[in-house]
Amino acid sequence: MNDIVYGLNPVLEALRSGRAQRILLADGAKAATAAVAQLTAAAQVPIQRMSRRDLDGLLPGTNHQGVAAEVRPFRYTSLDDLLSAAASREEPPFLLILDCIQDPQNLGTLLRTAEAVGVHGVIVPRHRAAEITPAVERASAGAVEYLHVAQVTNLTQTALALKQRGLWIAGVEAAPSAVNYTQASLTGPLAVVVGSEGRGISRLVRESCDFLVKIPMRGKITSLNAAVAGSVVLYEALRQRQAQPSDLARTRESAH
Amino acid sequence: MNDIVYGLNPVLEALRSGRAQRILLADGAKAATAAVAQLTAAAQVPIQRMSRRDLDGLLPGTNHQGVAAEVRPFRYTSLDDLLSAAASREEPPFLLILDCIQDPQNLGTLLRTAEAVGVHGVIVPRHRAAEITPAVERASAGAVEYLHVAQVTNLTQTALALKQRGLWIAGVEAAPSAVNYTQASLTGPLAVVVGSEGRGISRLVRESCDFLVKIPMRGKITSLNAAVAGSVVLYEALRQRQAQPSDLARTRESAH
Repeated sequence: MNDIVYGLNPVLEALRSGRAQRILLADGAKAATAAVAQLTAAAQVPIQRMSRRDLDGLLPGTNHQGVAAEVRPFRYTSLDDLLSAAASREEPPFLLILDCIQDPQNLGTLLRTAEAVGVHGVIVPRHRAAEITPAVERASAGAVEYLHVAQVTNLTQTALALKQRGLWIAGVEAAPSAVNYTQASLTGPLAVVVGSEGRGISRLVRESCDFLVKIPMRGKITSLNAAVAGSVVLYEALRQRQAQPSDLARTRESAH
Repeated sequence: MNDIVYGLNPVLEALRSGRAQRILLADGAKAATAAVAQLTAAAQVPIQRMSRRDLDGLLPGTNHQGVAAEVRPFRYTSLDDLLSAAASREEPPFLLILDCIQDPQNLGTLLRTAEAVGVHGVIVPRHRAAEITPAVERASAGAVEYLHVAQVTNLTQTALALKQRGLWIAGVEAAPSAVNYTQASLTGPLAVVVGSEGRGISRLVRESCDFLVKIPMRGKITSLNAAVAGSVVLYEALRQRQAQPSDLARTRESAH
């Protein structure tokens, strides 16, 4: 069975990205009708009209705004696609690795930031992590439609493969050996690793990082929300990358 | 009736801060028993033992980890207390103003970042905003226990009062007139204003801002999660404030 996304903005994103396969539209949903009609004509997606009560029955307890869409499941891409995306933009690779993020809200929020900050792609493990479900898409505000996401079997091996291809692997973790994230060099070919809220980055993945960065904690609380921590580091990386022309950026070779 | 917080970490935070008035402990909750016993003795808080089934009945559908605490309601402080906190730390005031954040998860996450970044306090409106409930406390990972939060009737008047006391008011908003947040000066006496996810900062509050800052969006999505946007700007402010000794920081007077 197809996944269902609902609500005006998620449905419009699904139409724009070509993932919507059928639109479910409640009678009397005026705002949705007008916006959807424009896009479905261009995309040649069928519309099924139904009573609001029927749509409520299909999506109990949701704020669907009178519209939903059946979408094909999220299509993951390959690691090579992520690196090709960087090459085609003529930028040093800038990737996000999510190690076992279980919470759909945090996963969606991180994907939203990743898209906004302009990463070339995101890497997630095939097991012990939240899938990219409609709930995650919703939390991402539709960002997943525009992101390359690769699902890999073994994050540690992936990290090693990325190192061989010249990337630096930076783990976000408040370890004693970690450097302040604003003092670390986050330019050049880079993959940022963010772990889950409770357990952080898993041991083998952490050991495959080139360096760890930490975010200063000036109060009594010892950690940030995982999505916030990842977002703060990604935006610091963008700040450094925009301040430094890419031809001057650190490369793995020149630093060794 | 008292508020109830549950789960090991929130209960321990409530005990440390002195807000816990009674502990509810399920039979057989070993980790909770050991940790709580140590703190309740010092804090002289009574413990009520009960079966796990009774605690389940009191907190249906929650992951309470066998322990809960009755706490007195959150105690808001005054605007003067926030400024006194800055004075006693001999730092230029650094405040966060939250304009009508409705989502408890976002509110809690922002309070968690605010505590971590070391603001002297947070200002929230009395109406049209989420209260600091146990759900917010939980999302803040206990940070509210260590934060001064002032509840005010009129945010616009509060912003004007803060300007008269020398603070700069910076609104986080992707308006055409906004400057890139890394190019804005966020040192000196400062209040950062974050609006709600859907509607942003309300018009009158926005008009009382000295300047607006925006976060670059390099993809197709037009906005970040509100808690992420606020956190990214707060941490950029901290970066600038730590890079610049406070006696060199911009003051309202010298800049005019």
